[in-house]
Amino acid sequence: MEETFVPLRGIKNDLRGRLLCYKQDWTGGFKAGFRILAPTTYIFFASAIPVISFGEQLERNTDGVLTAVQTLASTALCGIIHSIVGGQPLLILGVAEPTVIMYTFMFNFAKERPDLGRNLFLAWTGWVCVWTALLLFLLAVLGACSIINRFTRIAGELFGLLIAMLFMQQAIKGVVDEFRIPKRENPNSTEFIPSWRFANGMFALVLSFGLLFTGLRSRKARSWRYGSGWLRSLIADYGVPLMVVVWTGISYIPASSVPKGIPRRLFSPNPWSPGAYDNWTVDMLNVPVLYIIGAFIPATMIAVLYYFDHSVASQLAQQKEFNLRKPSSYHYDLLLLGFLTLLCGLIGVPPSNGVIPQSPMHTKSLATLKHQLLRNRLVATARRSMRKNASLGQLYGNMQEAYQQMQTPLIYQEPSSRQGLKELKETTIQAASSIGNIDAPVDETLFDVEKDIDDLLPVEVKEQRLSNLLQAAMVGGCVAAMPFLKKIPTSVLWGYFAFMAIESLPGNQFWERILLLFTAPSRRYKVLEDYHATFVETVPFKTIAVFTIFQTIYLLICFGLTWVPIAGVMFPLMIMLLVPVRQYFLPKFFKGIHLQDLDAAEYEEAPALPFNLVTEAEIGAGASHAGDGEILDEVITRSRGEFRHTSSPKITSSTSTPANAPQTSFESPRQSYSPRLGEIRGEPSPRSGGRGPHSPRPPSSLGKSPLSSSTTPK
Amino acid sequence: MEETFVPLRGIKNDLRGRLLCYKQDWTGGFKAGFRILAPTTYIFFASAIPVISFGEQLERNTDGVLTAVQTLASTALCGIIHSIVGGQPLLILGVAEPTVIMYTFMFNFAKERPDLGRNLFLAWTGWVCVWTALLLFLLAVLGACSIINRFTRIAGELFGLLIAMLFMQQAIKGVVDEFRIPKRENPNSTEFIPSWRFANGMFALVLSFGLLFTGLRSRKARSWRYGSGWLRSLIADYGVPLMVVVWTGISYIPASSVPKGIPRRLFSPNPWSPGAYDNWTVDMLNVPVLYIIGAFIPATMIAVLYYFDHSVASQLAQQKEFNLRKPSSYHYDLLLLGFLTLLCGLIGVPPSNGVIPQSPMHTKSLATLKHQLLRNRLVATARRSMRKNASLGQLYGNMQEAYQQMQTPLIYQEPSSRQGLKELKETTIQAASSIGNIDAPVDETLFDVEKDIDDLLPVEVKEQRLSNLLQAAMVGGCVAAMPFLKKIPTSVLWGYFAFMAIESLPGNQFWERILLLFTAPSRRYKVLEDYHATFVETVPFKTIAVFTIFQTIYLLICFGLTWVPIAGVMFPLMIMLLVPVRQYFLPKFFKGIHLQDLDAAEYEEAPALPFNLVTEAEIGAGASHAGDGEILDEVITRSRGEFRHTSSPKITSSTSTPANAPQTSFESPRQSYSPRLGEIRGEPSPRSGGRGPHSPRPPSSLGKSPLSSSTTPK
Repeated sequence: MEETFVPLRGIKNDLRGRLLCYKQDWTGGFKAGFRILAPTTYIFFASAIPVISFGEQLERNTDGVLTAVQTLASTALCGIIHSIVGGQPLLILGVAEPTVIMYTFMFNFAKERPDLGRNLFLAWTGWVCVWTALLLFLLAVLGACSIINRFTRIAGELFGLLIAMLFMQQAIKGVVDEFRIPKRENPNSTEFIPSWRFANGMFALVLSFGLLFTGLRSRKARSWRYGSGWLRSLIADYGVPLMVVVWTGISYIPASSVPKGIPRRLFSPNPWSPGAYDNWTVDMLNVPVLYIIGAFIPATMIAVLYYFDHSVASQLAQQKEFNLRKPSSYHYDLLLLGFLTLLCGLIGVPPSNGVIPQSPMHTKSLATLKHQLLRNRLVATARRSMRKNASLGQLYGNMQEAYQQMQTPLIYQEPSSRQGLKELKETTIQAASSIGNIDAPVDETLFDVEKDIDDLLPVEVKEQRLSNLLQAAMVGGCVAAMPFLKKIPTSVLWGYFAFMAIESLPGNQFWERILLLFTAPSRRYKVLEDYHATFVETVPFKTIAVFTIFQTIYLLICFGLTWVPIAGVMFPLMIMLLVPVRQYFLPKFFKGIHLQDLDAAEYEEAPALPFNLVTEAEIGAGASHAGDGEILDEVITRSRGEFRHTSSPKITSSTSTPANAPQTSFESPRQSYSPRLGEIRGEPSPRSGGRGPHSPRPPSSLGKSPLSSSTTPK
Repeated sequence: MEETFVPLRGIKNDLRGRLLCYKQDWTGGFKAGFRILAPTTYIFFASAIPVISFGEQLERNTDGVLTAVQTLASTALCGIIHSIVGGQPLLILGVAEPTVIMYTFMFNFAKERPDLGRNLFLAWTGWVCVWTALLLFLLAVLGACSIINRFTRIAGELFGLLIAMLFMQQAIKGVVDEFRIPKRENPNSTEFIPSWRFANGMFALVLSFGLLFTGLRSRKARSWRYGSGWLRSLIADYGVPLMVVVWTGISYIPASSVPKGIPRRLFSPNPWSPGAYDNWTVDMLNVPVLYIIGAFIPATMIAVLYYFDHSVASQLAQQKEFNLRKPSSYHYDLLLLGFLTLLCGLIGVPPSNGVIPQSPMHTKSLATLKHQLLRNRLVATARRSMRKNASLGQLYGNMQEAYQQMQTPLIYQEPSSRQGLKELKETTIQAASSIGNIDAPVDETLFDVEKDIDDLLPVEVKEQRLSNLLQAAMVGGCVAAMPFLKKIPTSVLWGYFAFMAIESLPGNQFWERILLLFTAPSRRYKVLEDYHATFVETVPFKTIAVFTIFQTIYLLICFGLTWVPIAGVMFPLMIMLLVPVRQYFLPKFFKGIHLQDLDAAEYEEAPALPFNLVTEAEIGAGASHAGDGEILDEVITRSRGEFRHTSSPKITSSTSTPANAPQTSFESPRQSYSPRLGEIRGEPSPRSGGRGPHSPRPPSSLGKSPLSSSTTPK
C-alpha cells in the first residue's frame, strides 16, 4: 500500500480493489458448503462471549442503562453491515473493552450533572458518536490509514500481547471475584454465606480450569493419534463451543445439593421484558448546547482509539504469512466505521470496532478451512490418477491442474503473491528413482495420498464474506437466545477468557522472543528444529535479547497505563508513539539489517539480494520432512515466521530460471531448518551464505512436466 | 535362570551370585554421592504415601487395632532388613493392598468369635504369619521361583495394569468420598453441613488435579526448553515430593475463611500417645488350638499371594531392557520374605512384600541416576580432550577409557550383557570427513559435548543398596514425623494415587497395544516414528488386535474379581492361571513367531538367526538422530521395546567381526526406526529382511582407533 494523503484516493483504491472480488466473496463462501460452519461457530463464540461479559460489566457500571442486550445488538448490527458492505471481510467487529471503559467514564461524568443525568446519558453519548463519526470520516478521507505501514510488527505484536494480558487479567479477576459477594446482590441470601461462597469459588476454579484445559486440548485434536479422522476434525473445529456446552452441563451435576445461584451464571435482562427497549429512541435535542460541544473531547479520544484499534485489527488479520490474495481496505473500512458509530450513537447502543484477537483468529480458522478444502480435492484427484495408473509426473500434473481450478480468480493481484503447489518432494523423487520406476504407475508406496498432500499445500485463506455475516447474525440471535445463554456459568466465561489469551500467543514473534530469552542456551537449537522466524538465524542472540527487553518494558508501561483510572483508556497513544520510536529511535541502537529481520518495515526495505530466492527455494525444499495433518496447525499457529517480502520483478530478474520454466516460481510459505552442526551454536550465519544441507538449486518450474527441471537418473 | 527344582540349589545360586557383588553394592552407592538422594526421595514418597493410606484403611476396618503407625513400621523394618541382607536390592518392600484386604477379612472373622475376639486378633494373625512363613520357606527351598521364567510379559504387564487400575480406582473413590461424610466422624460438626461438604469436595478436586497435573509435568522437566540445566534436573528429580509440599501449602491458603477440617487431612494416631504400643507384644499362646490349626487356611492364600507378588515385583524391577549387570535372587529373597513375615507376625504388624509399581519405578529412577553420572564424567573427559586439541579418534578413545573406569567390576556376568559406548555416530564422522579434517582437533562444530554424549550412552542402572536402605529408613522416620504428615490433605493423596497409576503406564507394552487399537489407521505410522517394540513391525495388526483384546478381557475379569468380597483377594490366582494359558492355549491360536514377538518366553526361544545381530547394529546406528537429554526419559519410560535376547556365543560365532576388532561388540539397547515408505502401511516386513535405510554393516569395533572399521574417504 502506497502512502497517499491525497483526499479520497485511499478510499477509491480500496473500493476499486474490493469491488472486483465482491462477487467472488459470496460465491466462494457458498461453495465451501457446510464446512463454513466450523470457522463461523468458532468466531461466533470468540465474539459473543466477551461481548456478553462486557455487557454485564457495562450494566454494573451504568446502573443498568446499557446491558448485554445492547452490546450484542451493536455487535450484530455492525457485524452484519460490515460483512455485507464492508471492505475487508476478514475483520470482525464487536464492542470492545476500551469502549466499555470510555462509556463508564462518560456515565460517571453525566450522572453527576443535574442538567444531563442518567436520563440524558444516551442522548449525550449520541452526540459523542456524532463527533467521533465526523473525525473518523476526516481521517478516512485524508488517508490517515496510509501510515498503517509504519505500524510495524513491533507495534502490532505489542498490542496483541497487551490485549492477551488484559484478557488474562479479566479471567483471573473473574475467578477471584467468584469467592466474593457481588456488589449488586443481596449479601444475605443463602448462596453468600461464607461456606457457599467458598464452595462457589472452588467450583468456579474447577469449571474455568476445566474449560481452559479441555478447550486448549481440543484445538489440537487434528494431531491426535486416536479416533477417526472425521471425529478429530469435528473436535478440532467445534471443540471449544462443545466444551462450553459440556462444562455448562457439568455445572448442573450438583444442582440438587447446592442452593440456586451456585455456580453463578450470566445475569442479563430478558430482552422481552418491558423496559428493555426504552433506551432505543434517544432524544438528542434535549441535550444542552454546552454538552453537545463538550462531547467533542471524549469523541477525539474515541476516534483515536477506534482509528488505531480498527486498523491494527485489520492489519493483524491480513499478515503476510497468510498469503492473502484479495486486497486490503483500510481507508474505506474506517469510513464505514464512522457511519456505524453514527448509527450506534443514534439508536443508543455502544459502537463496535475491529477486535483483537478475534480478527486474526478468524483468518487462522479460514486458513484451516481452505487447507481442508484443497486437501480433499487433491486427495480425490490423486486417488483418481492412481486408479488410472498414472506415473508420478502425471499425478503431479493432474494435481496441479485441480489445484489451479480451486484458485480464486486472480483479478487484483501482484505477480509475487501467486503461488503454486510446493516443489515436488525430493524424497519422493529419490524413492522413485531408486526403485527405478519414475515412469511406472504410482502406488501408495511412492506417494502416500493422505500424508504427502499435506506437505505440498501452501498456507492459503478462504477469503469470503459468508462466515463473517453468519457469525454476526448468530450474535444477533443471542439476543433472542438470552434465556439459554443465562445458563452458562460465569466461571466458564473466565476460563474462556484465559483460553482466548493463550490462543492468541503462538505465532506472535514478540512472545516467541520472550520465550527464547528463557530458553536455556543448550536448548536453543530446538527452536531451530521447529518452524521459526528468520531472525533466529540471522540476528545475534544479544541483539534479540536487548530488543526484546526493550519491547517488554514498553509493554509493561502500557499495561500499567491501563490501570490509571481515566487516562488509562488512552493506552493506544502509547502504541502509536511506537511509530516514531521505531522510525527514529531504534535505528540508533540496532543495525539496520537486524531491525529488518526483527521488525521488517517497508519504508526501509533493502533491495533484494540476488541469492535471496535461491535460499528460500532451498529452505522450502527442505520442508518436506515435516509430517502430517497437524502440520497445518503448526503452519498457521506456529510458523508465521516472516516470509521475507521481496517484490516480484526483482526476483525474476535476479534468478537464473531454467530455460523451460514459465514465469511462475514456486515460493514456499513455510520455512524449515535442518540444523547444521556449525549453526546451532547460536552464532549468526552470514545471511548470504545461509545455504542449508540441500544442494543449491533454482526454483523449479510449474509446467506440464514438473519433473523436467529436477533431473533424476533412471 | 535355569529351571531347577533340586532343593536349596536356587537359594545357593542366588547367594553365590549376590555375595560376589555385595561389597560393590555398598561402595557403588556411596560413590554416587548426594545424587543418590534423588531416586531415594522419589521412591520414599511412592512407598510411604500408599502405606499411610493403607494404614488409614486398616484403621477403619480393624476398629483401630492396626493403624498407619503399624504399616509404616512394617514397611520400614522389612525394607531395612531386605536392603541389608536381601538378595535383589532393586526390590522395594511395603504393606500392599492385598495384605490390607486379607487382614480386614481376618479381623471380621476374628471379632465374631467369642474365644478370639478383638483382643486375640493380633495373636491369631501371628499364627497365620507362622504358617505363611513355613509355606514360603518350603516354596523357596523347593525352587518354586524357577517357574518365574514362565511368567512372561503377558502376565507381568497384565498385573502391572491391574495394579494401575486399582490405584486409579482408589484415587477416584477417594475424591468422591471427599463429598461425603466419613463414617467415623461426627456428622453434626460444622465441616459436614452440606455447604462445607460441597466446598470440601470441590477443594479436593482442585488439590488432587493440581497435584496430578503438576506432578506429571514436573517429571518431564528434563526436556523443558526453559530454565537452566540444574533447575530442570532438580525439578525432574524432586518435582513430585516438591509438589506434595506445594499443594499442601496451597491447601492452607484459605485457612482463615474455612472451618478446621477443610480440606480433610490425614488422620493418624500420634505414635507417642499412650496405648499406641499396646499391640506390639502378642500373647500367641492364648489362642485356642483349633484356631492355630485353622490359621493354615488364610496362610495358604497369603503365601500364594506373596509368592506371586514378590516374584513379579522383582521380575518387573529387572526387565531385560534395563541391561542389569548383577544377578537376580528370586529364591533367596522368597526365603527372606518368609523370615520377615514371621517377624512381622510375632511383633503384631501386617507383613510387607515386594510392591508394584514402586519396584520398577525404583529401577527406572536408578537408570536416570546412572545416566547422569556417566554423562557428567564423559562430558568432563570430552572437554578435557578438546582443550588438548585431540582428534575425533582420540576423543572417542579417551571417552571410552573413562567409560570403562565407570563400569561396575564385572564379576558375575555373561559376556552378552557387556556393553560399550554406542557406535560412533555416522553423522559425526561424515561431517568430519566432508570438511576433510578427520585428524584435526575436534571443536564444538564436530562434537557437541552436551548433546552428542547423550546419544552415545546405553541404558544402565546404578545397582546398589544405599537408595533402598535410605528410603526404608525414611519411611521409618515417618512414624516420628507423623505430626507433619498429618498436614497433608487427603485429596493430595488421591492425586498422588492417580499420578502413580499414570506413571506406571508408559513402557507397558500391553498398554501401548491398547492405545494402538485406538490409533486411527492413518496415524499408525506415527508409532513407528517413535521408539517402539519389535512387534509393531513384525506382527500383522489383526493378530496384535486379537491378542490385545484377549488380554483386555482377561484383565477386566481379574479387575471384576477384586470386587468380589472375600474371594477377591485371590485375583493373583487368575494371573498365575495365565502361565498354562500362555503355554498351552495361546500357541493354538497364534503363530509361534508372532507370540515370540508379542510375548517372548524363554522356553520357546528360537535359535538366533545369523543376521539378527547385524540388523540390530544397523538399527542402533540409526538411533543417532534422536535429540537430547530427554532421550533419557524416552529410553527409560517409553522404549522398553524388548531388546531381543540372544545368548552371546551364538552372536560371536555368527558375525563377521573385522580382523582388528577386539571381542567387545557394540550393542545398542535402543531401537530407532526411520519409516520406509513400504513399511508404514502396516504390512509386516519379513523378520529377516528388516533392513532399514542404513547400509548393512557389522558392529564396529571398540579399539584404540575406533574410526578404522568405518572407513571414511578424506
